[in-house]
Amino acid sequence: MEKVNVLIIGGGASGLQAAISAKTYHPEKSVAVVRIEEKVLVPCGIPYIFGSLHSSDKNILPDKMLTDIGVEIKIAEVTEIDIQKKFCTLSGNKKLYFEKLIFATGSVPTKPTWLKGGELENVFTIPKNKHYLDEMHAKLKPLKKIITIGAGFIGVEMSDEMNKVGWDVTLVEIEDSILSRAFDKEFGDKAEELLKSRGVKVITGKGVKEIVGKDGKVNKVILTTGEELEADAVILSMGYAPNTKLAVKSGIELNKYGFIKTCEYMRVDNCSSDIFAVGDCAEKRDFLTRKLNTTMLASTACAEARVAGMSLYGLSPCKSFGGTIAIYDTAIGDTAFGTAGIIESKAKEEDFSVVVGSFTGMDRHPGTLEGMHEQTVKLIVASDCGMILGGEVYGGMSVGELTNSIGFLIQSHTNIKSLLSAQIGTHPLLTGSPAAYPLIKAAEVIVKKLKY
Amino acid sequence: MEKVNVLIIGGGASGLQAAISAKTYHPEKSVAVVRIEEKVLVPCGIPYIFGSLHSSDKNILPDKMLTDIGVEIKIAEVTEIDIQKKFCTLSGNKKLYFEKLIFATGSVPTKPTWLKGGELENVFTIPKNKHYLDEMHAKLKPLKKIITIGAGFIGVEMSDEMNKVGWDVTLVEIEDSILSRAFDKEFGDKAEELLKSRGVKVITGKGVKEIVGKDGKVNKVILTTGEELEADAVILSMGYAPNTKLAVKSGIELNKYGFIKTCEYMRVDNCSSDIFAVGDCAEKRDFLTRKLNTTMLASTACAEARVAGMSLYGLSPCKSFGGTIAIYDTAIGDTAFGTAGIIESKAKEEDFSVVVGSFTGMDRHPGTLEGMHEQTVKLIVASDCGMILGGEVYGGMSVGELTNSIGFLIQSHTNIKSLLSAQIGTHPLLTGSPAAYPLIKAAEVIVKKLKY
Repeated sequence: MEKVNVLIIGGGASGLQAAISAKTYHPEKSVAVVRIEEKVLVPCGIPYIFGSLHSSDKNILPDKMLTDIGVEIKIAEVTEIDIQKKFCTLSGNKKLYFEKLIFATGSVPTKPTWLKGGELENVFTIPKNKHYLDEMHAKLKPLKKIITIGAGFIGVEMSDEMNKVGWDVTLVEIEDSILSRAFDKEFGDKAEELLKSRGVKVITGKGVKEIVGKDGKVNKVILTTGEELEADAVILSMGYAPNTKLAVKSGIELNKYGFIKTCEYMRVDNCSSDIFAVGDCAEKRDFLTRKLNTTMLASTACAEARVAGMSLYGLSPCKSFGGTIAIYDTAIGDTAFGTAGIIESKAKEEDFSVVVGSFTGMDRHPGTLEGMHEQTVKLIVASDCGMILGGEVYGGMSVGELTNSIGFLIQSHTNIKSLLSAQIGTHPLLTGSPAAYPLIKAAEVIVKKLKY
Repeated sequence: MEKVNVLIIGGGASGLQAAISAKTYHPEKSVAVVRIEEKVLVPCGIPYIFGSLHSSDKNILPDKMLTDIGVEIKIAEVTEIDIQKKFCTLSGNKKLYFEKLIFATGSVPTKPTWLKGGELENVFTIPKNKHYLDEMHAKLKPLKKIITIGAGFIGVEMSDEMNKVGWDVTLVEIEDSILSRAFDKEFGDKAEELLKSRGVKVITGKGVKEIVGKDGKVNKVILTTGEELEADAVILSMGYAPNTKLAVKSGIELNKYGFIKTCEYMRVDNCSSDIFAVGDCAEKRDFLTRKLNTTMLASTACAEARVAGMSLYGLSPCKSFGGTIAIYDTAIGDTAFGTAGIIESKAKEEDFSVVVGSFTGMDRHPGTLEGMHEQTVKLIVASDCGMILGGEVYGGMSVGELTNSIGFLIQSHTNIKSLLSAQIGTHPLLTGSPAAYPLIKAAEVIVKKLKY
């Protein structure tokens, strides 16, 4: 009877991190990851396979991160789990007993059932599956006209990368602006303008009605307005759903959005404290609104996985997961966009009374230095108490870390007023200037507006 | 009788920021800056005048930042101040009355009196003075062999920039490693290696005994070991002293390091609450050790200036200055170094019991992406309570903002354990990977070591 102390199902970002944390904090326990894939892709790197990287082989999560610390990797499918008796059945009918189990089964791309023509050849989704994507890449190579449907991060990055290496790309988005879940319209418009200037055709405010085929292959796309777009292939980037088939089969309860119900220590609600779930398959609760939500991010998944890994054999209140902040970035050429926490439009929808402030400056100083990029920071602040609720950033390649700064400010419940006396470091080649650092200047704009 | 509500003496970074804050928070008050210089240099940009920028004209603080919001600029010297009767005497014997006064008189480079040959032609210091630097630049142009003495930020950046455009530069530092006040030895050694690979000759662990002249001009430098170095010019970057002549003449008290004694609202200790001091001339107290110190940074100066500007006509406890964190960065080519808070060696000197942890990863992911740079984060944490005391970073051009993240974590008294469940945003082109983000991994290393 084979037994491991800690078994993790799924080898993506959250499974990898859960295994690392489990082994790091409990080196005396045996830890194993069971996954279907021979090789695992870096999830956020997927769009770059089709452009800058030219191949999925350059986008592999190194197994070394696990094997070096003594985590066992098993390439197999888990077909069944007995949660009470604590064993899994693997492909080949092998039984594997566990003491603690972590679901890290991730998510799968959604293909809406209402979309006519979704079954045609050359209609693709973007699963985190090397085999599928390699085949898709090969099929796309001889084709020319690509329609990407859905302008979230994946849709935008796929469109930009494919355009960069020569495909003729049209990005279609039903909302009025692109990246609209993550950014207020003024930022989305900037991103749209940039994408267009690089050659991607962008259509917003129009949905897709039907994909039309010819000889079983994609031939054109018909929009809700009746317009027709010629197409050789269609890429659907319309969202992902938690991959919970196995969990459901094992009697695990899902929330209304289809995620495995978990607590702040990532323990599965309707199980004993030996069963955990992390990453895209696990319940998300917004850090600020406290509502359930559906944000899926590798970075959030890893934070959850660290919490689970640390909490397997004991809890600590300072190691619980406080809810999803949703910090993410994207880059289009040398321009980057970052967002953390709640955006203005969403804050208003959620009944937060907010004050916002923006400042546009430079990311180097003096502005005469080569490589200088304009930088805008917008902050969203609770008008009754001054707590920082969110931030959006536009600028050069330092945007990622600047967005993380804002993320930390939100997570530590920082009051906007304390930013005015906060210290930052500045350097000509690395940041804005001390007297015009956009983050602090945006705070200044807000404090001037605050009445309390 | 001319009178302004708020008078600021000095037009550098702190004077500029004090004027902006004063006018922003008290728009009904008249605000004036008196300064000697026609044009003011961006202080941190000075080394780049001699390299990348080629001229000081590209390194000017724009007066527009002041005039646009209605701050008056007076080009004059303040020769005397009557603190009790509240007026200044300007060059030309003009009297200028004020309601509130802010000293922002900055600092001047020090030339040690013990240094023989300091008076020779072609021995330079680096004052924040356009006229002086333009003349120095012109005199340096026909010369070849430059010796820079003192490997703090200014010395390192001057050496690198001058080497870049063709001078033959030797940097001499009496300490065992360069940048030793800001970085632990392992980071200083990396910087030294890098400087050398770019062609700067670096000599550490040896002091300078004498500068020897020929016909009144620099000819060679003799080290404490007796070694002789040929030299056409010597650049002294051996530190700065607060510029407090005028303050002393006005009866203002200095601390043991020669800084104007101030409180957390930047009010001058032995005056009425109408007199403030900010920036390099104002007292510094370490955020962590609470001791007086001598750190001079434009970014810290601006934080103090914001506090003074906001506190002119009333106090708020959330707008006081909590002590100097000392966040700073430098870049050598495409490699950057950042530091925030206390370093390991200094923490030990100061009797903090600390645990440190480092992690080296990448600043893009997967590492196959073009432009990827190795990134190291070292954190210094109080071993009894887990509070983050400091951090050092080595990496690509995102180091500046990453260092600011660490600065915010220190300022919000973050416990290292809470970093393990903290969320970050990650993006292939902008940051390390979610499962190997160096800041979080360094925290992991430390938490494993903590016994409590």
